[in-house]
Amino acid sequence: MHAQFTVSTRGQGLYEITDQIVSWVREADVDVGVLTLFVQHTSCSLLIQENADPEVKDDLLAYFSRLVPPASDPSMSYLRHTYEGPDDMPAHIKAAILPVSLTIPVVGSRPALGTWQGIYLFEHRDAQHCRRLIAHLV
Amino acid sequence: MHAQFTVSTRGQGLYEITDQIVSWVREADVDVGVLTLFVQHTSCSLLIQENADPEVKDDLLAYFSRLVPPASDPSMSYLRHTYEGPDDMPAHIKAAILPVSLTIPVVGSRPALGTWQGIYLFEHRDAQHCRRLIAHLV
Amino acid sequence: MHAQFTVSTRGQGLYEITDQIVSWVREADVDVGVLTLFVQHTSCSLLIQENADPEVKDDLLAYFSRLVPPASDPSMSYLRHTYEGPDDMPAHIKAAILPVSLTIPVVGSRPALGTWQGIYLFEHRDAQHCRRLIAHLV
Repeated sequence: MHAQFTVSTRGQGLYEITDQIVSWVREADVDVGVLTLFVQHTSCSLLIQENADPEVKDDLLAYFSRLVPPASDPSMSYLRHTYEGPDDMPAHIKAAILPVSLTIPVVGSRPALGTWQGIYLFEHRDAQHCRRLIAHLV
Repeated sequence: MHAQFTVSTRGQGLYEITDQIVSWVREADVDVGVLTLFVQHTSCSLLIQENADPEVKDDLLAYFSRLVPPASDPSMSYLRHTYEGPDDMPAHIKAAILPVSLTIPVVGSRPALGTWQGIYLFEHRDAQHCRRLIAHLV
Repeated sequence: MHAQFTVSTRGQGLYEITDQIVSWVREADVDVGVLTLFVQHTSCSLLIQENADPEVKDDLLAYFSRLVPPASDPSMSYLRHTYEGPDDMPAHIKAAILPVSLTIPVVGSRPALGTWQGIYLFEHRDAQHCRRLIAHLV
């Protein structure tokens, strides 16, 4: 069982996709299994994080922007892959630190997420992008 | 084949769970397959790490405490989600950097861990917690 | 369906293994499924990253060498597990931050990698090593 999803992004940030993933799993009607989500890009990530307080998303974005500053920041002057813009190589670095895929058990035809867990696409580029996700259910 | 485990934690640190996971896989009696472990929280992680020298655990804890200091640290003054305590938002950040799930091949009814690999729950909160893990075996 | 691969490394860096993994999946002749790759070590990682411009690999190596400096660096003087060399404990830390396993959907007997995605073993030790990988296909 597999499907392709697209997520439209408008700059850096966390885009919640929990609802569309939960709906797809429910329609697939698999009682117990494992869901794999995989993003076919090297400058965005998938993330499971708290979906209660929106300030958590802001703080995550702020933290990772400091952990991996833009290539224009003096501390990043050693970077060589800079011709695609100051946000490009930092996006690759964040895409190394944060997951490219998620593996979530399915129980009772639902991803077995905890009460506060939501599924996000974490966009690391500034420009608009259309991101492709592959979902697979065993 | 799936099961739920709970892990009691008493503050930040790495809690080894290798033995209970290996026992469960042995009892499941699946010769070749894939084991998925998933933690239903956004302020702790799962980690595969060296289980030989306990100083590795201390050093990992020390490193991540410096990489993501408490919200009370001046360098973290930009954080906004702070009303659940100075260890809360840093816990979410560490739970973004470190894995929420582990996928381990099973060969000969055993997780195919290397000689020095152990499975840990990495607790990022200071208070006592009871953490829920979902294990799934294909 | 499972197999063991070995990767010879000659110091820190990213070693591309896309071709051998893609070949193995093609020979396994599974139309739709999930590929799990797992590295049986605690001082190297697996990574999906851009395989177009080799400078991306250099920049990733440079970034992670700064994020986790050698134990001989004054900023790392708190480390205690240092008797296996100044690159050892930093290798464990990088192996915590970066993935020990990868989960990739398989569609049309191919790992569903995006256009620019390659699969790498990321070696964190200075000395030569022979790294073992377990591949599993459902």
